[in-house]
Amino acid sequence: MEFFDIAETWNRDEIRQAQLVRLRNTVEQAMRSSFYGATLRKAGITPDSIRSLDDLRRIPFTTKDDLRNQYPDGLNCVPRTEMVRMHASSGTTGSPTVVYHTQSDLNAWADLMARCLHMVGVRRDDVFQNMTGYGLFTGGLGLHYGAERLGCLTIPAGPGNTKRQVKLMRDFRTSVVHIIPSYALYLAAAVEEGGEDPHALPPRIAVIGAEPHTEEARRRIEEMLGLKAFNSYGLSEMNGPGVAFECTEQNGMHVWEDAYIAEIIDPATGEPVPDGEVGELVMTTLCRRGMPVLRYRTRDLTRFLPGECPCGRVHRRLDRMVGRADDMLIIKGVNIYPMQIEQVLMAFPEVGQNYLIVLEREEFIDQIKVKVELRDEAFVEDMRVLQGLQKAIARRLKDEILVTPRVELVQNNSLPKAEGKAQRVLDLREKP
Amino acid sequence: MEFFDIAETWNRDEIRQAQLVRLRNTVEQAMRSSFYGATLRKAGITPDSIRSLDDLRRIPFTTKDDLRNQYPDGLNCVPRTEMVRMHASSGTTGSPTVVYHTQSDLNAWADLMARCLHMVGVRRDDVFQNMTGYGLFTGGLGLHYGAERLGCLTIPAGPGNTKRQVKLMRDFRTSVVHIIPSYALYLAAAVEEGGEDPHALPPRIAVIGAEPHTEEARRRIEEMLGLKAFNSYGLSEMNGPGVAFECTEQNGMHVWEDAYIAEIIDPATGEPVPDGEVGELVMTTLCRRGMPVLRYRTRDLTRFLPGECPCGRVHRRLDRMVGRADDMLIIKGVNIYPMQIEQVLMAFPEVGQNYLIVLEREEFIDQIKVKVELRDEAFVEDMRVLQGLQKAIARRLKDEILVTPRVELVQNNSLPKAEGKAQRVLDLREKP
Repeated sequence: MEFFDIAETWNRDEIRQAQLVRLRNTVEQAMRSSFYGATLRKAGITPDSIRSLDDLRRIPFTTKDDLRNQYPDGLNCVPRTEMVRMHASSGTTGSPTVVYHTQSDLNAWADLMARCLHMVGVRRDDVFQNMTGYGLFTGGLGLHYGAERLGCLTIPAGPGNTKRQVKLMRDFRTSVVHIIPSYALYLAAAVEEGGEDPHALPPRIAVIGAEPHTEEARRRIEEMLGLKAFNSYGLSEMNGPGVAFECTEQNGMHVWEDAYIAEIIDPATGEPVPDGEVGELVMTTLCRRGMPVLRYRTRDLTRFLPGECPCGRVHRRLDRMVGRADDMLIIKGVNIYPMQIEQVLMAFPEVGQNYLIVLEREEFIDQIKVKVELRDEAFVEDMRVLQGLQKAIARRLKDEILVTPRVELVQNNSLPKAEGKAQRVLDLREKP
Repeated sequence: MEFFDIAETWNRDEIRQAQLVRLRNTVEQAMRSSFYGATLRKAGITPDSIRSLDDLRRIPFTTKDDLRNQYPDGLNCVPRTEMVRMHASSGTTGSPTVVYHTQSDLNAWADLMARCLHMVGVRRDDVFQNMTGYGLFTGGLGLHYGAERLGCLTIPAGPGNTKRQVKLMRDFRTSVVHIIPSYALYLAAAVEEGGEDPHALPPRIAVIGAEPHTEEARRRIEEMLGLKAFNSYGLSEMNGPGVAFECTEQNGMHVWEDAYIAEIIDPATGEPVPDGEVGELVMTTLCRRGMPVLRYRTRDLTRFLPGECPCGRVHRRLDRMVGRADDMLIIKGVNIYPMQIEQVLMAFPEVGQNYLIVLEREEFIDQIKVKVELRDEAFVEDMRVLQGLQKAIARRLKDEILVTPRVELVQNNSLPKAEGKAQRVLDLREKP
């Protein structure tokens, strides 16, 4: 196999050794900022006190609020004159979060991004059409620099103007697109409505990200456009895209552990979850000079996928994000995320568009009930068929959330909707 | 004085020597494209046949139609795999014009752009807020790469969202902005309406371009925002911005003659105009490998400013663009551009917003009449005052256009308007 970076070939030992060295460097560098200078000293952390990777857990978390409170310069570790780029979150009121980059930070980011693209087969003879917004949004410039770094013919198309996007694809034989999932579906439908076959469009690879989407949506994009779609994960606090990316196995996103340390914690306790369980992703930069960030609480929920990836890379794989930590429900002491339930339900072809998770407390014990709409054609009269489906759903849910729910099958369009948007959770428990 | 590039210090001889060598290289490179391979051979041009810069005039012009006809690849001189960027003009019907860049072309473009910014005092400790669109429009990415090349802290703000732009300026102490002139005026007015003083905003330098604007508009931007505004000229066929740029003298834009050859021709005959006269700008790239363009008819009208620039650079200065070649009028064999007339009129404080140029033929001789609206307060009863003004305007017009017009002063709002937009030219001559 061909690799873009030697770090892709490292084994777990090599990754851990590099992480330890770079974590020490990062702590040393971070202490030059007013924020980490104070918080690390307070926690008794010095670079020398990082003797093993386990010492990472002695470092306090950094939250989005910390970033907001330090606006605009409190995490900077080099003078502003050494910074060459700034990205900020949107918002005109309150303080946005800001990330600064030195030239070497930008170079390292472009390298990581190029590595992601290379991993799924993008090469310098590819034509890369970048169909997302540029500007402060990190997705546009992030992929742009990565594709240019790889030597692709990069078309900075930007978002929207479907007719023109399609013309560019055809005229320049675009082989790779970077596109928001919902826009990919829209574009495919628009081409089809125009009486043409979206399957015949030239792209063979789509990079999709920046928006939560299901596996079903990905498969639909692939089928409609006749290409392979790869999930990309990133967040501006960790540069943007280039943090984790699917390989050609399309089974989880390899997080680049030579550049980041990823942890998954219980958002309620801050403790690591058992391997393979869903929790909040916590990220530490290992290669940033301008503005390192330690143990950043992303609020994104995911888990490490177990086992080895057939692609040969041992950088651990993150599962698709299953929601935000703020959505977490605690039932019988177990953390459950609505997205986990949705994923199970949507795998049943009989299930319609809506469902409702009802939480109740009966004699001091939490109960979870899931009301599930069935498609009209699935709502048959034969009770045995319905009971069989009900049991199958309950079984699959228990496998996923470790709690046995009561499943109630209801008619299509019978569940309440709030302002056109389906209500997903109804918590009837008294607050403790 | 401090220079960014040694080429800024060259004298005319050095510029000419470099131009001759690079023109030969460019012809040699251009012949690798199917388009120039054919047209140069047909014109009997070989690299060796370029013995002096005068031989440039033996090379046929390249027009926008040529670029359209060669869509999408006909001017490419290297395989597409060596190209890393493509910019295209807008338009979904017909063929857009396309410009390709190799990595070395992009590097050279960023260097030229950095040189422009450096010339007006931008340095690595500046904060550069890029307030134009990114994507296929060359202005956004062009300035972005230039500012990053210079080491400025670059904020890719993109266009619009005035409130946020102002917040970014204040919070990050933005010292340099790249902004469309009409948006600069809008932003200043918006801040003023919000009860604040736009003069107090941090930026000390504005780079303005991408839109025709008058000297009056520039001065207004400077006064309202309390900064120095510098004109930038470029066109996507010549990369984009970075072709010509004002120095701190603010008296014409130095065209970088080590990277381009600029000619000014009579758009009707194709012959060079006498030095200092207005004509169509024709440009030749000297440093492009991927897609050189020879003698490109820009359709932009300007003139070389005479004399030496006190800044010490001998790269010739282009005057502000006075319009498009397609607007040219021929009167008594003289080429006249409506913009020339407008500039003369707008220098008179008595003159209102509208005017009308009427062309007539009397006994086979062209006549030009200019109807000029006066402001209400200037439309006085005293005929001697009005006659004096009439004569003064006629005299200044003759100095500019070399033909004596009849000047007619009319009341405010009395001239015809077509769809809200003022009609500027009424040609009553029979077509020959």
